[in-house]
Amino acid sequence: MAHITLPEGVPGIRSLVMYRPETGKHLYQLAQVLLRDASPLTPAERELIAAYVSHKNNCMFCMSSHAAAARCLYGDESAIVDDVLNDMQHSGVSDKLKALLIIAGKVQQSGKSVTVQDIDAAKASGATDREIHDAVLIAAAFCMFNRYVDGLATLTPADPEAYREMGKRMVEKGYALPDANGK
Amino acid sequence: MAHITLPEGVPGIRSLVMYRPETGKHLYQLAQVLLRDASPLTPAERELIAAYVSHKNNCMFCMSSHAAAARCLYGDESAIVDDVLNDMQHSGVSDKLKALLIIAGKVQQSGKSVTVQDIDAAKASGATDREIHDAVLIAAAFCMFNRYVDGLATLTPADPEAYREMGKRMVEKGYALPDANGK
Repeated sequence: MAHITLPEGVPGIRSLVMYRPETGKHLYQLAQVLLRDASPLTPAERELIAAYVSHKNNCMFCMSSHAAAARCLYGDESAIVDDVLNDMQHSGVSDKLKALLIIAGKVQQSGKSVTVQDIDAAKASGATDREIHDAVLIAAAFCMFNRYVDGLATLTPADPEAYREMGKRMVEKGYALPDANGK
Repeated sequence: MAHITLPEGVPGIRSLVMYRPETGKHLYQLAQVLLRDASPLTPAERELIAAYVSHKNNCMFCMSSHAAAARCLYGDESAIVDDVLNDMQHSGVSDKLKALLIIAGKVQQSGKSVTVQDIDAAKASGATDREIHDAVLIAAAFCMFNRYVDGLATLTPADPEAYREMGKRMVEKGYALPDANGK
């Protein structure tokens, strides 16, 4: 049960943006710009960074939903999302994306954990300032979303099918505020 | 030196919102709603929660600037901000604010660290759902801001006077995007 009274049956962040739309509006707009609007990183790569950080924060709701969105974007036949979540260093992503995921993982621990060596390695593998910026801000933002969702103990569906549908909707509709029914 | 090329001489978050105003806009609007707009918690209490979490995250820039804003709001003669940063449990804040700061401190560690007992204690001291919500989201948001500012190694002034001016401006002007000169 959630720590505060939230719309019934609505999972995760959606129950919170319905509870307080004044903040919810800006949170969803931030997610839309960060994960969907123009960036040198593809939406698939950005959803993967979001899922990776949420996995490290042990946030089942955000990890499952953003992993589902990333799977949908990479194509269902691709094992890349699960490979990264299981063992990122030995996954098949590019050296550049690996270096950005390492930085995202450092940000998950603390901003100060990111070293000049981490940045140099990312730049050596071809990452631009803007790609490093976006990876850092996505990682930082999911340290917020994960804490918001879990800190208020929001509803976390257990059925994987629920997340597959959620991921599909996140890809098709982007980050739009839910209607009065939480849809 | 910052990890990416940012506007020169502009400190902390301001250099980042100038670097990428598309995300900066939503970050500042979120800060404005969270810390200034309508809430059962006063702006002083909310700035104090922001400073407390930033202190726990060891983010010198956010801690110093939000502590300065809180000092300005509580009144310069008050020692409440420094007392909370030094030893919150023995500070003179109300039992309700103490319970909310305990929850904020748990959120800083992880969303899952917040227990039913923490929530019950806050409610027993008079905290409403909305106050608990706002404390959790402020704490979560500063886990983002702190990581964003430190993860890209932004400029952190060493002079306490710089933060006093910043705090005063944050109180007078709220969270408005900087102009082309970073002001």
